[in-house]
Amino acid sequence: MKIIQKHELNSLKRSVDQGTEEQREAVKKIIHDVKQRGDAAVQSYTKQFDRVDLEELRVSEDEMDAAYESIDGEFIEILQEAEQNIRRFHERQRTNSWFEPAADGSILGQKITAIDAAGIYVPGGTAAYPSSVFMNVIPAQVAGVERIVMTTPPGKDGNVPEGVLVAAKLLGVHEVYKVGGAQAIAALAYGTESLQPVDKITGPGNVFVALAKREVFGDVDIDMIAGPSEIAVLADDSAKANEVAADLLSQAEHDARSSSVLVTTSRELAEKVEEQIETQLKDLPRYEIARASIDDYGAIIICEEMDEAIAVINEIAAEHLEIMTKDPFGDMAKVKHAGAIFLGPYSSEPVGDYFAGPNHVLPTSGTARFSSPLSVDDFTKKSSIISYSEQALKSNGGKISQFARLEGLEAHARAIETRKERWK
Amino acid sequence: MKIIQKHELNSLKRSVDQGTEEQREAVKKIIHDVKQRGDAAVQSYTKQFDRVDLEELRVSEDEMDAAYESIDGEFIEILQEAEQNIRRFHERQRTNSWFEPAADGSILGQKITAIDAAGIYVPGGTAAYPSSVFMNVIPAQVAGVERIVMTTPPGKDGNVPEGVLVAAKLLGVHEVYKVGGAQAIAALAYGTESLQPVDKITGPGNVFVALAKREVFGDVDIDMIAGPSEIAVLADDSAKANEVAADLLSQAEHDARSSSVLVTTSRELAEKVEEQIETQLKDLPRYEIARASIDDYGAIIICEEMDEAIAVINEIAAEHLEIMTKDPFGDMAKVKHAGAIFLGPYSSEPVGDYFAGPNHVLPTSGTARFSSPLSVDDFTKKSSIISYSEQALKSNGGKISQFARLEGLEAHARAIETRKERWK
Repeated sequence: MKIIQKHELNSLKRSVDQGTEEQREAVKKIIHDVKQRGDAAVQSYTKQFDRVDLEELRVSEDEMDAAYESIDGEFIEILQEAEQNIRRFHERQRTNSWFEPAADGSILGQKITAIDAAGIYVPGGTAAYPSSVFMNVIPAQVAGVERIVMTTPPGKDGNVPEGVLVAAKLLGVHEVYKVGGAQAIAALAYGTESLQPVDKITGPGNVFVALAKREVFGDVDIDMIAGPSEIAVLADDSAKANEVAADLLSQAEHDARSSSVLVTTSRELAEKVEEQIETQLKDLPRYEIARASIDDYGAIIICEEMDEAIAVINEIAAEHLEIMTKDPFGDMAKVKHAGAIFLGPYSSEPVGDYFAGPNHVLPTSGTARFSSPLSVDDFTKKSSIISYSEQALKSNGGKISQFARLEGLEAHARAIETRKERWK
Repeated sequence: MKIIQKHELNSLKRSVDQGTEEQREAVKKIIHDVKQRGDAAVQSYTKQFDRVDLEELRVSEDEMDAAYESIDGEFIEILQEAEQNIRRFHERQRTNSWFEPAADGSILGQKITAIDAAGIYVPGGTAAYPSSVFMNVIPAQVAGVERIVMTTPPGKDGNVPEGVLVAAKLLGVHEVYKVGGAQAIAALAYGTESLQPVDKITGPGNVFVALAKREVFGDVDIDMIAGPSEIAVLADDSAKANEVAADLLSQAEHDARSSSVLVTTSRELAEKVEEQIETQLKDLPRYEIARASIDDYGAIIICEEMDEAIAVINEIAAEHLEIMTKDPFGDMAKVKHAGAIFLGPYSSEPVGDYFAGPNHVLPTSGTARFSSPLSVDDFTKKSSIISYSEQALKSNGGKISQFARLEGLEAHARAIETRKERWK
């Protein structure tokens, strides 16, 4: 892990994979095809990409039950406890509709409603995490979304990972389809004979999934396009080097393009963390990935003062930020941009990945400057409410007409004036 | 205005203008050029598209003052009253950071922060509305955004519309640039010598602006891409035909592609509205536009029952919805999708365009199924807060490690276990 200067921060930046021109064209073709031919197109792409010929795209209740039976009971209990924690946190995010009555009899307000249908994409293979199912489905459920659909690519044997099915079953999601890639996104956005369209698609995926989400955006809503995972640790001399190193490595093992950065006011800590990274790296099962990630996108920045360090942290705007300092809460108050902030020595980042409660779908690649963790708000929308009273229109109608005419919109002015006879 | 059947609703759908391949290429070139050459590129495109050679892109304080002096004092007062109303409504939207302490000493929470810098695009020419300035700037100010920048295309004389400058001055926005089109969006997203980049860009524009916003999305945040304006009116026999017609026409005059739909349980009202539309249309100054809009995208749907009518309204998911029925509040409760809902006979849609307080930037083209009016939330973002206690890690550390190992992430499990010595 290299020690770098502040101004070298840019060298760590990785932008979201925009795909090649070829990939973009392929995705457009798939979407067009699924729009035109529905299930037949989905089945043919599943044959081509997933190498399995599926008659029935939907996962049966029997398959769900079999997956549930096959899983260790102790793990089910851990999953259930995690579910409770996640649900409790997200319930706290619910917001109320509100109304503000005025003395003149008018009422203004904001009505909150859930979207009708959400589609959750769950990646296949080694990235098929039950925790992803929880983190995407639970906020939608808490928001009150009536229909929640999951799609996930099948293996060559026509099955989908058990962990994903168990998570779905635990949450009461029964509409699960064996479809992956751009064809899944197209089916969710536009519908096929066997899959009714949804209003919003969330969940991570490979570059084809990301490109397809970008392509259907506008016809349906999507969540953010996630880049590789990141961690920044803000630490002073009160932090323990072995803990800091272990947490940095927990992000590095995700992906060769993951980024792990330590920002510290202690040169001694910096040097010890460097050593610890080497020691701990050696026998990690995902050594190759973690090694590449640390070498290419790992770095240590040493600052003179804590405020200078916090400024660097705000510039990074990391997906995950750990604060291991003498005053973690005080320092957190000064942090402007981060997806999730982990405070103090016991808040190792994996605590938030599965179990604590907050969502693990977080803004990456510096987008914490303007984006938020996935939340209940992502599955609701607002309508403004305007109930004007006779008195309000009487007092303000003239001003509104005048405003309209100044903006050159005569029919707007007249719409107000048509009501004049009502208050004569 | 034609009477249509429910199943013909699709014929009224207008999708967002995606631009031609040529336009998309032009926009990509402009963005690339502004990224490379900064101000020089912006100036050269301004010369090419706006036909004016500008040395200085930023509007001077003298220009702002001169605009203010030139405007009628009475209009300033109306603007100020509108500003107050809009500010009061948006202040109600502010949400608090929250923390939830647990008995084991852990704290979970959600921290709300404003984005650092917002860029507001204001279209030029006849669409340069002071109300657009208010509706985009005020939510950003209420959110606490420190830096708010405006760009708007200059006329051939090198000036920008007075109304826009007055609105900016009233709100205390002093960073205004004479730049329009895709070059403005590129400058806001990536910065130039004279314009520091922002984190989010909002505001309407022509197809080049819309394409550019889509292109920079991800590097910065954007608001939704707006389609042509729409109104749906839900009415029973208690509604007055002349008022319904006037309100439908107030949207029709915006754009030949605007859509105005009446959904009613009263055939008598439907027929009278048809007549009234013809009578009122005749002498509108924007007759051509309103005529085309009514002919191509205007329609009346007659339903047997109010619940059936409300189902149609939910299918339309209109930008503006007026409810002129005997029970507007009861019917509103059943409406799931609409940008802004206007209740009762006095709530003519233009009331909301300028003056009442709620935002006039609303989801169009059916996107009210999943989008919201522009609000304070659009200029803030959240960070999750996780402060785990020693006791919490002791109780849950084992489960978290086990979960991590089941998902195949050993370094995650070890990060938790490194802390074991802390609780031994």
